[in-house]
Amino acid sequence: MIRVTVWNEYIHEQEQEEIRRIYPEGIHGCIAGFLKKEDDIEVRTATFQEPEHGLTEEVLQNTDVLIYWSHMRQEEFSDEVAKRIQRHVLNGMGLIALHSAHYSKMMRLLMGTGMTLRWKHDERERLICTAPYHPIAEGVPSHIDLPREEMYGEYFDIPKPDDVVFTGWFSCGEVFRSGCTFTRGLGKIFYFQPGHEEYPIYDNSVIQKIIINAVRWCRPVSRKMGQPDCTQVITTLEEEYQKR
Amino acid sequence: MIRVTVWNEYIHEQEQEEIRRIYPEGIHGCIAGFLKKEDDIEVRTATFQEPEHGLTEEVLQNTDVLIYWSHMRQEEFSDEVAKRIQRHVLNGMGLIALHSAHYSKMMRLLMGTGMTLRWKHDERERLICTAPYHPIAEGVPSHIDLPREEMYGEYFDIPKPDDVVFTGWFSCGEVFRSGCTFTRGLGKIFYFQPGHEEYPIYDNSVIQKIIINAVRWCRPVSRKMGQPDCTQVITTLEEEYQKR
Amino acid sequence: MIRVTVWNEYIHEQEQEEIRRIYPEGIHGCIAGFLKKEDDIEVRTATFQEPEHGLTEEVLQNTDVLIYWSHMRQEEFSDEVAKRIQRHVLNGMGLIALHSAHYSKMMRLLMGTGMTLRWKHDERERLICTAPYHPIAEGVPSHIDLPREEMYGEYFDIPKPDDVVFTGWFSCGEVFRSGCTFTRGLGKIFYFQPGHEEYPIYDNSVIQKIIINAVRWCRPVSRKMGQPDCTQVITTLEEEYQKR
Amino acid sequence: MIRVTVWNEYIHEQEQEEIRRIYPEGIHGCIAGFLKKEDDIEVRTATFQEPEHGLTEEVLQNTDVLIYWSHMRQEEFSDEVAKRIQRHVLNGMGLIALHSAHYSKMMRLLMGTGMTLRWKHDERERLICTAPYHPIAEGVPSHIDLPREEMYGEYFDIPKPDDVVFTGWFSCGEVFRSGCTFTRGLGKIFYFQPGHEEYPIYDNSVIQKIIINAVRWCRPVSRKMGQPDCTQVITTLEEEYQKR
Repeated sequence: MIRVTVWNEYIHEQEQEEIRRIYPEGIHGCIAGFLKKEDDIEVRTATFQEPEHGLTEEVLQNTDVLIYWSHMRQEEFSDEVAKRIQRHVLNGMGLIALHSAHYSKMMRLLMGTGMTLRWKHDERERLICTAPYHPIAEGVPSHIDLPREEMYGEYFDIPKPDDVVFTGWFSCGEVFRSGCTFTRGLGKIFYFQPGHEEYPIYDNSVIQKIIINAVRWCRPVSRKMGQPDCTQVITTLEEEYQKR
Repeated sequence: MIRVTVWNEYIHEQEQEEIRRIYPEGIHGCIAGFLKKEDDIEVRTATFQEPEHGLTEEVLQNTDVLIYWSHMRQEEFSDEVAKRIQRHVLNGMGLIALHSAHYSKMMRLLMGTGMTLRWKHDERERLICTAPYHPIAEGVPSHIDLPREEMYGEYFDIPKPDDVVFTGWFSCGEVFRSGCTFTRGLGKIFYFQPGHEEYPIYDNSVIQKIIINAVRWCRPVSRKMGQPDCTQVITTLEEEYQKR
Repeated sequence: MIRVTVWNEYIHEQEQEEIRRIYPEGIHGCIAGFLKKEDDIEVRTATFQEPEHGLTEEVLQNTDVLIYWSHMRQEEFSDEVAKRIQRHVLNGMGLIALHSAHYSKMMRLLMGTGMTLRWKHDERERLICTAPYHPIAEGVPSHIDLPREEMYGEYFDIPKPDDVVFTGWFSCGEVFRSGCTFTRGLGKIFYFQPGHEEYPIYDNSVIQKIIINAVRWCRPVSRKMGQPDCTQVITTLEEEYQKR
Repeated sequence: MIRVTVWNEYIHEQEQEEIRRIYPEGIHGCIAGFLKKEDDIEVRTATFQEPEHGLTEEVLQNTDVLIYWSHMRQEEFSDEVAKRIQRHVLNGMGLIALHSAHYSKMMRLLMGTGMTLRWKHDERERLICTAPYHPIAEGVPSHIDLPREEMYGEYFDIPKPDDVVFTGWFSCGEVFRSGCTFTRGLGKIFYFQPGHEEYPIYDNSVIQKIIINAVRWCRPVSRKMGQPDCTQVITTLEEEYQKR
């Protein structure tokens, strides 16, 4: 079983009637809903307003993959919890950062760059697969049309991704590296642009397929608890051979 | 002219007689010494004990490439100055991080990973060129023997480098990605392992050649002051066309 | 089920008594032997002397992952079959190229570089994991000692790998990118250096574990038959929207 | 001085009046024309109809960077000359492949993949800089509008580029990795999509700037003649030390 924690800021859905109508259970509820149907995935959710944002040491120790959506409270998010997430990723926890989570504290800690981009409301997007060999693209068509989405445009100030699985085309004349993979420490990271709160993007079955694929791809290969310090080596290979 | 600032912690050389004998002008003095002979390079130095560690906003605004050696005072280094260096790298300043600077605050901020490694005193190193096409390897032989060097060994917890220009072989049975390039924002970064303070590594003319090449390679391609925020786009390509 | 074809030149084992003693069933027999014990893997073998080297269009159409060991007959290998393998890899077939297969025709076709390296008989190797996050390294220790192996050394003239999962340390003062992954078209490729015919390397249980992991990693994500030509696009996104 | 050879198929301009009007001196004449104005660049040209296509061993030995435009005679191009170009690139010669040269024999030899793409006549392109830190982007604006260009679209079947310096946006709903860098052997390669023969793309001063930057970026770092065979190593590091 892959143990997934779906984290959502859950502010828009509580404060704005029109967003609540789109995601009555919250974005986290929507995502947890379709993940639960998979036999190899076990889901829990957490939100901003819980103590420690619901991401305690214990929760993260029991999380194989963290899915994370944030927007309005990026700056108010606890520095300590952001560092805790970073540490768990380096120790092997998978991370799927959705949409405006590009600018979350944990992503800025993990990436080290500015994470800035260009943006514009209400554009048409075509999401084009630019790495059809990647497990995240398994069973996904060569492109997906999203009639309404927030535009995110280049230059996107990220470190060079391992793979750009999807590239976004926007009708206003912009492109974006919309689906990017990274490895940090023992952890795999997938950043995925679609998912502006005003449109029911996570109800799209192909978007769901991509997120499910990503969960499987970024499950931990191995999991060590406790981040290593620099380690002193005492013996040489010669000495080890002589001991045998 | 490429404006280089050579920063050295400068603690070992003041506190330990045997290190002072190796680097009577300090490691920064040694590096500045051979860089000054190059026609296209202009050098200044700075050290830990100066106010703001000698790395004020003004100094960094007038620095094209920062060379940085640190070891004993990594934790005492100012958080604010570390973030300032990060910001300048993202805005285009080149960075050459030497030896134990892998674990400096600025490198941990820029890389986002643990930056841990294995280490052992007093081994023989052979530095092997594993990217002979790279400008940093220009005019450098296929390998360089360093009869005494501190061993640094894998796993080195860094993000995937753009190029591993040099790989270190150590007699005790270890290897290391000893010369790694990264790009972050507009800035180019070269991490270079050789240079333990107990051995006169920076007097080696091939090591000097590599550092000079690295200075030229990581000079800024363009330089913007002020890190961008996320930028809202107002017009579409259509609207721009209609205006013409 | 992952359908694996293990291909071996199978010349050394027939012509040299001392090699036959190490691999009485041939290298292919040894590899097929341990793969067969896995529940999700189905194995067949093929060798140089069979018609079309045993790699007919039909065999490759029914192969998910090809494992390939070659040495003495690289130049005599059929150009047509080498191109056929290349085409199947581009269409999604996984490929594991072992030891001297770095210089096989199919690898030179797929990589486009010289594929040359340095070599020396009878050295001690330590294989060090330099990408512990990679699925091929799952359950593999941080290093593996091979008391006797042929040395392969840098510069290894390959295109930049996606990941260098293992780096080899050799007692004579050489290093090597010993476990490299590549993606070409829809196909995943793993090049793995250990396996000189004079030593029973493929009997080593950790080496076996790595090959089993690699089979699972490079199984096809999707499989199209027939390599695409350049494709003309007729309609625009606008026209498609209007049709709806 | 960087010695550039501009190679053009030069068939369209001779056979089609409307193309000749756009490039009266041929595409090679246009490109040679703006390169000649640079102080550090020396230019010669060659075309398909010359003996050995004008790319003799002697010409390539005296070429630092080859610029190459082809379209109508890709299949009729000499296999021997295509392999000769490949060999010179591996030995350090820079290569700039323009537009439909993606499907030239030399590119297919160097890349090893299918090199296929989607295409459509007469679209509007916006070329967006997705690697502003790269020397090829020096002094180039964040985007360039090309009111008429042939569309090239993904999936573009290339190996993973080192950098995607430019990404093309096309009005019909397609994106393309329009400016890609690769390293093969000692040689640097820049593939650049703009330049369909029906539109005066190479008269655009920003396109010219990009090609000039690319010439400087892909000049040889070092140049060895003769491609290496696999090299046997005789002595160990120990033995070399003992000899000193």
